Amino acid sequence: MRISQLSEQAGLPVGTVKFYLRTGLLQPGVVVSATQAEYDEAHLARLRLIRALLEVGHLSHAEILKVLEALDLSGSDLPGALQQVHRSTAGRHPEGALDGALDPAAAASLVSDLGWQVDGDSPYLVELARAVAALESVGLAPSRERLRVYAESAAHVARHDVAWVRSAADDDKVLVSTASAVLWEAVLNALRQLANEHQEARQDSGVPAPRMPAP
Amino acid sequence: MRISQLSEQAGLPVGTVKFYLRTGLLQPGVVVSATQAEYDEAHLARLRLIRALLEVGHLSHAEILKVLEALDLSGSDLPGALQQVHRSTAGRHPEGALDGALDPAAAASLVSDLGWQVDGDSPYLVELARAVAALESVGLAPSRERLRVYAESAAHVARHDVAWVRSAADDDKVLVSTASAVLWEAVLNALRQLANEHQEARQDSGVPAPRMPAP
Repeated sequence: MRISQLSEQAGLPVGTVKFYLRTGLLQPGVVVSATQAEYDEAHLARLRLIRALLEVGHLSHAEILKVLEALDLSGSDLPGALQQVHRSTAGRHPEGALDGALDPAAAASLVSDLGWQVDGDSPYLVELARAVAALESVGLAPSRERLRVYAESAAHVARHDVAWVRSAADDDKVLVSTASAVLWEAVLNALRQLANEHQEARQDSGVPAPRMPAP
Repeated sequence: MRISQLSEQAGLPVGTVKFYLRTGLLQPGVVVSATQAEYDEAHLARLRLIRALLEVGHLSHAEILKVLEALDLSGSDLPGALQQVHRSTAGRHPEGALDGALDPAAAASLVSDLGWQVDGDSPYLVELARAVAALESVGLAPSRERLRVYAESAAHVARHDVAWVRSAADDDKVLVSTASAVLWEAVLNALRQLANEHQEARQDSGVPAPRMPAP
C-alpha cells in the first residue's frame, strides 16, 4: 500500500508516518519509483505498536526505539531481547531527580524481606526507592504492612504475566512481554482507580466489602 | 526563612521556586521588604509535594494545580476536594488520541461484570477502554480471565487505600488520597516489575511459585 493508505489505516497523519521513517522507528518500505515506496501489513503492525506504546504507555521515542530493537533482536537472541524490553521500560525519570532521597539498598532489603530474589542492579529497585522517598518527603512514610499488601497484589499479576509470556510462541514473546510491561500496567492503574470508586460507593452504602478471591 | 534557604531545603534551584511562585503552585511568602519575603514550613511542605507529584507521579503543572486547589478546598468542602483529587489524576492523555478505538461502554460492561459499581462517566472507564483498545490494536486482545486477575489485584490494594484515607484525620485526607492515587501507583508499578523479575528467576531455577496470601 502507499504511504497515504498506511497513514489512514494506522490513524496517523502522513507527516507523523514520515517522521517515524526518518527517525528509524518505522522500517523503510520497498522503493517502487523515485518518489514512491510500498508498505505492507508489517509496517501497519509496527505503527499500531508505536502508537500504543506512545499514547497509552507514555514511552519516549528513545524507549520505543529500544523496544523495537529488541523485537528485531528476538530471532537471534531471545533472552537478550526480553531483558532489553524489561530494562527499557524502566527509569522513565530524569537523571538526578530526588537523588538526595534515593536509597536502592533499602528498597533491596525490603524486597528481600518479601522473599523475592531480584538483581541488586535492577532499575526497578531505584523506581521503588524513588516512590518510597517521595512518600517520606510528604510525611507519609509507608508502613511495612501496607507495602506487603501492595507486594501481594503485584505478585498476583506477575505470576500470570510470566506464565503469559512463557506460553507465547517464541516469535511473539517480545511483543507479549512489552504489552505485559507497558499496556497491562495501564490496565492495572485504571482498574485500581475504578476499584477505589467502587469501594467508596460500597462503604457509603453500608454494603460489606467484597472478598478477595484466593489464587 | 529566605527563598535561598527554602530552595536549599527543598532541593530545588531558586529559579524553579520563583517559577512556582509566579505560576501559583506555591503560595506567596510574607513580604518583609521591597525585595524580600519570608517563607515557612508550610511552603517547604508544599514544595516537597509538588516535587513528588512531578518527579514520581509525572503529573503536569495543570494537574498539580488542581490537586493544590483541592487541598485548599478541603477545609470547606471535603467530599468535593476528594472528588477533585480523584478526577485530576485521571485523563493524563492528549484529547482525541486513539479515539477510533475508544469504547467506554464496553469498559463499563466489563466493570459491572466484576460486580463493581462505578459512575458511568468515570474518567477511569475511558482510561481502561484506551488500554484495552491499545492491546487489541497490537493483536493481543485481553481475555476476561486475565482482566479478572488484574481486577482482583486492583481490588486488593483498593480496599486498603480506601481504609487508609478513611482513617486519616480530616485535615490530612486530601494529601493521603493524593499520595494513594499518585505515589502508591508508582510503588505498585515498581513492585510489579520486581515481582516479574522474581518470578522469572524462580521459574528458571525450578523452585515452585510462591503462594498468594489470602486477604
